[in-house]
Amino acid sequence: MKYKKIFSKIAKELENTVDNGKVADYIPELLTVNPSKFGIHLTTINDKHFDFQDDDEKFSIQSISKVLSLSLAYKLEGEKLWERVGVEPSGTPFNSLIQLESDMGIPRNPLINAGALVISDILVSHLKNPKKDFIKFVRNISGISSIDYCPRIAESEKSTGFRNTALINLMKSFGNIKNDIDEVMDFYFNLCSIEMTCKELSQTFLFLATYGRSPYTKERVLSKSKSKRINAIMQLCGFYDEAGEFSFKVGLPGKSGVGGGIVAIYPNKYSIVVWSPKLNKKGNSSKGIKFLELFTTETQTSIF
Amino acid sequence: MKYKKIFSKIAKELENTVDNGKVADYIPELLTVNPSKFGIHLTTINDKHFDFQDDDEKFSIQSISKVLSLSLAYKLEGEKLWERVGVEPSGTPFNSLIQLESDMGIPRNPLINAGALVISDILVSHLKNPKKDFIKFVRNISGISSIDYCPRIAESEKSTGFRNTALINLMKSFGNIKNDIDEVMDFYFNLCSIEMTCKELSQTFLFLATYGRSPYTKERVLSKSKSKRINAIMQLCGFYDEAGEFSFKVGLPGKSGVGGGIVAIYPNKYSIVVWSPKLNKKGNSSKGIKFLELFTTETQTSIF
Amino acid sequence: MKYKKIFSKIAKELENTVDNGKVADYIPELLTVNPSKFGIHLTTINDKHFDFQDDDEKFSIQSISKVLSLSLAYKLEGEKLWERVGVEPSGTPFNSLIQLESDMGIPRNPLINAGALVISDILVSHLKNPKKDFIKFVRNISGISSIDYCPRIAESEKSTGFRNTALINLMKSFGNIKNDIDEVMDFYFNLCSIEMTCKELSQTFLFLATYGRSPYTKERVLSKSKSKRINAIMQLCGFYDEAGEFSFKVGLPGKSGVGGGIVAIYPNKYSIVVWSPKLNKKGNSSKGIKFLELFTTETQTSIF
Amino acid sequence: MKYKKIFSKIAKELENTVDNGKVADYIPELLTVNPSKFGIHLTTINDKHFDFQDDDEKFSIQSISKVLSLSLAYKLEGEKLWERVGVEPSGTPFNSLIQLESDMGIPRNPLINAGALVISDILVSHLKNPKKDFIKFVRNISGISSIDYCPRIAESEKSTGFRNTALINLMKSFGNIKNDIDEVMDFYFNLCSIEMTCKELSQTFLFLATYGRSPYTKERVLSKSKSKRINAIMQLCGFYDEAGEFSFKVGLPGKSGVGGGIVAIYPNKYSIVVWSPKLNKKGNSSKGIKFLELFTTETQTSIF
Repeated sequence: MKYKKIFSKIAKELENTVDNGKVADYIPELLTVNPSKFGIHLTTINDKHFDFQDDDEKFSIQSISKVLSLSLAYKLEGEKLWERVGVEPSGTPFNSLIQLESDMGIPRNPLINAGALVISDILVSHLKNPKKDFIKFVRNISGISSIDYCPRIAESEKSTGFRNTALINLMKSFGNIKNDIDEVMDFYFNLCSIEMTCKELSQTFLFLATYGRSPYTKERVLSKSKSKRINAIMQLCGFYDEAGEFSFKVGLPGKSGVGGGIVAIYPNKYSIVVWSPKLNKKGNSSKGIKFLELFTTETQTSIF
Repeated sequence: MKYKKIFSKIAKELENTVDNGKVADYIPELLTVNPSKFGIHLTTINDKHFDFQDDDEKFSIQSISKVLSLSLAYKLEGEKLWERVGVEPSGTPFNSLIQLESDMGIPRNPLINAGALVISDILVSHLKNPKKDFIKFVRNISGISSIDYCPRIAESEKSTGFRNTALINLMKSFGNIKNDIDEVMDFYFNLCSIEMTCKELSQTFLFLATYGRSPYTKERVLSKSKSKRINAIMQLCGFYDEAGEFSFKVGLPGKSGVGGGIVAIYPNKYSIVVWSPKLNKKGNSSKGIKFLELFTTETQTSIF
Repeated sequence: MKYKKIFSKIAKELENTVDNGKVADYIPELLTVNPSKFGIHLTTINDKHFDFQDDDEKFSIQSISKVLSLSLAYKLEGEKLWERVGVEPSGTPFNSLIQLESDMGIPRNPLINAGALVISDILVSHLKNPKKDFIKFVRNISGISSIDYCPRIAESEKSTGFRNTALINLMKSFGNIKNDIDEVMDFYFNLCSIEMTCKELSQTFLFLATYGRSPYTKERVLSKSKSKRINAIMQLCGFYDEAGEFSFKVGLPGKSGVGGGIVAIYPNKYSIVVWSPKLNKKGNSSKGIKFLELFTTETQTSIF
Repeated sequence: MKYKKIFSKIAKELENTVDNGKVADYIPELLTVNPSKFGIHLTTINDKHFDFQDDDEKFSIQSISKVLSLSLAYKLEGEKLWERVGVEPSGTPFNSLIQLESDMGIPRNPLINAGALVISDILVSHLKNPKKDFIKFVRNISGISSIDYCPRIAESEKSTGFRNTALINLMKSFGNIKNDIDEVMDFYFNLCSIEMTCKELSQTFLFLATYGRSPYTKERVLSKSKSKRINAIMQLCGFYDEAGEFSFKVGLPGKSGVGGGIVAIYPNKYSIVVWSPKLNKKGNSSKGIKFLELFTTETQTSIF
């Protein structure tokens, strides 16, 4: 209730702000989205829900899925995971090859493309049927059985994914990809294609606000310690080279996607998702970041 | 009490760990310190104190003072400050010139050397008598009037500070240093030379655990919002290119210095300082980081 | 005659030098070569021949073929070629992705891998049957109809060419590759696999010592101006990040390959080939470079 | 005679070309020069002279002096020189700190600023009275006793030389500067300030066309081998990140300065100087480079 009023108040404020962001154009499918869409959904750890506007419409979660694949890989692989990917912010754009080369094929962190490709490779090693098993994992932690990949988006990514192909081949040349490149790429592109509504996405991420235990199944998704560490990684690496800015202004761990979605976690309180397709120059939802800044200021929310 | 037992327990554990760290040798004065020193001091927001071993011995706080100069500069300059220095992690060692050049003289954040030099320049512009006014500020927020510079260390830094001279000249060439280089450098080297005990340092930083209000003078050092933002910057940039690792393992905002000190803040709870002079390859206290990892694990403490 | 004596004299000198070089191991096939092979062949513009030791044994010319593909592409595409590839030394290893990324997919020069891939792409656009047409060109300028690809080597390159796949995908993402990646790669790997003896190679390159007119067919391979420009590019870019060293010590334009071959051109005088499989740290024939340094010193030969 | 006609012909052609270059503005004194000045002077190894327009007017030779200081340092220090500076092209702008940092304080070559500062340091170590002894050396090899420093320019450089101060401090931090920084800088700024006419400059550089023996004093300035090596270095490093372009289009070793002068050497034939103050984006005389391209094309001159 309180939250819904704040949503409205901030939304009114933002109406008067010019949004110079641009919808992601690197894959054709994303361009078909109405740029003026705006949705918010907050789920508390007691499963109370606060929604606003287009929060019940599906969108492409894109890179936000990197946190989910990381969670599953961390669960399956344990601390050995960190031999193949770092936990440091990259200081460079999300798809840069520069650091990857000077770091000998070890990506800086699991939330840049290179890191997420390594995570995909690890999941391909562990899972019997990677695509099927992974979506089952997502459905399970969210309690929503209708969540799925979007084959059209996955196909669209494939047709323009030359830079990701460059990244994975570079890592293969350093020995940091174990499986067949085509298989890993296919899995990776499918991960990016998952579609959810704001509501579904905030439910899916709620386990990171509840220290790793799914509020829906009551099962442990991750240990308390691992769950906190995923939040720490989101805090430092969740917004490419705008991570510091987000941390500074919003003060919560979170992750963005080029579909215009952002999820943020207030540990032991709530998970919140905002969606607005226009992106700023760093590739993060322009209105989404402004909204979250005003929201955490208004509610005096911050982990710091 | 509880804390003291945990200190002892972890200290015993660490005795059996080989510490491959090396005392900082880049200035001669630091080499005179006994490498086996080990001190801990935790101050709660209610001014309760928990100490261990060498916590009452003075050491050179070095880069930890960068947080204090940032705090005063932020108070005096306000948000305009961020036109001259960023809030992003650097992804490179603390004294690198590479990013500084490609970023046209704007340091990535105020906690790397280049950023701290810009902060020093801002303070030189604002303060009538920079050295005197700054130490007065530090004494005031800590309630400890005996805190002071160490002229011997300051002199020692000056004699070997070629790389810092390179940094400041590069920034001057881009127009991001306004005052005379020698005056700024003299002020900067003095900042680095401040000496405190673990106890003094944890008291000095307590205002960042109390949302900006000094527990000693009851005066507001910084607004609540600014105080949280300083914590956010420490979280992302406080440990050079080991910030992610620290965040991941320790889960608290903090700052290290090459004198072997580390301060960490648990907002609304306490400020803790640990001191052990041997540094790991990233330039952070080797034993200090291990201690804090075990301590936050043991106490289930983390902002995430 | 005179030359043969000098060859023997220098060869004797070099016998007493320890050669710490290592045979290229990045493709299995190259490892099967006897590392102590040593051949020299000099062909004057009047088709006089001076040989030494293993000069009549086939070896894999590898990157030396990049000059031949550049020559044909330059002939077919003209000056428009330079819109897609630069003429500047790279200052980084031959297969680096770093500059390619910061230069937006335009390789620094046509003799690094990225540049040679663009050249291959251009040839695929121009030639009806790229592999057949190209080898015909090489046979034609050398007057030797037996020169051919080595399918075994080409296959071996393909199986480990992840980094080249990374390079071409990165360029494709910037729009600097026009044809199908697999087709260009197949052509490129075949180019690298060409085998020649020292004698054949020195004959093949003789047109660059005769200002572009083939001494065998009397036909013009390239205009005088274009032929000189190819020499200029070899001078600045022919030895990866050892180009300056080679220019400084040897003083002739040339090109090396990881098969251990080096060709050098003394305009209006001769073309010389030396072959010794052990490579120095920069990837150039260790003994080959030393030989050419002593040879040009002894004969007072240098374009400078 | 023949040459003079060609000069006129090309000059007429260039009149119709728009010159978008800009006079160097980084030091105030250089801005006072008339941007439409244009002078040419060619001196043959037999001391025949061919001049055009403003060839008898003094201008600031700036970085061209780096070849002269290198020549003297090479003579005095011998091959040991190359332990402190490389011979590879830099691939980056003339005053970049990036490579200097990753190469641990060893400049890529002696013709970028960092390299010239090391050369200055070496001369300060060798010469009793560096400024006096060096200008004596220049007067001697040119046979022109009136050549001198311009104190006004030297002073002007000093007042804005923050980036050079950054470079020298960075190298000092790596131990690659032996003398007092201020002394080396003063010497360096004086070297840059030397003024000559086109005629004087082409006479001064003639020893590099005559394999090291001064045509005026008949004394050996440098051994034949060393003289050729200086030409090789000019070829690869004389035009910052436009060295390849110059080599490709002009085909002669040469060196440019931000005063708008360019000197080029045709070994065993002549030395030529062209002067036009407007610089292209790479910092080289825009009209000067075009002139030399047309001149070497017209005269079919090239070392290749």
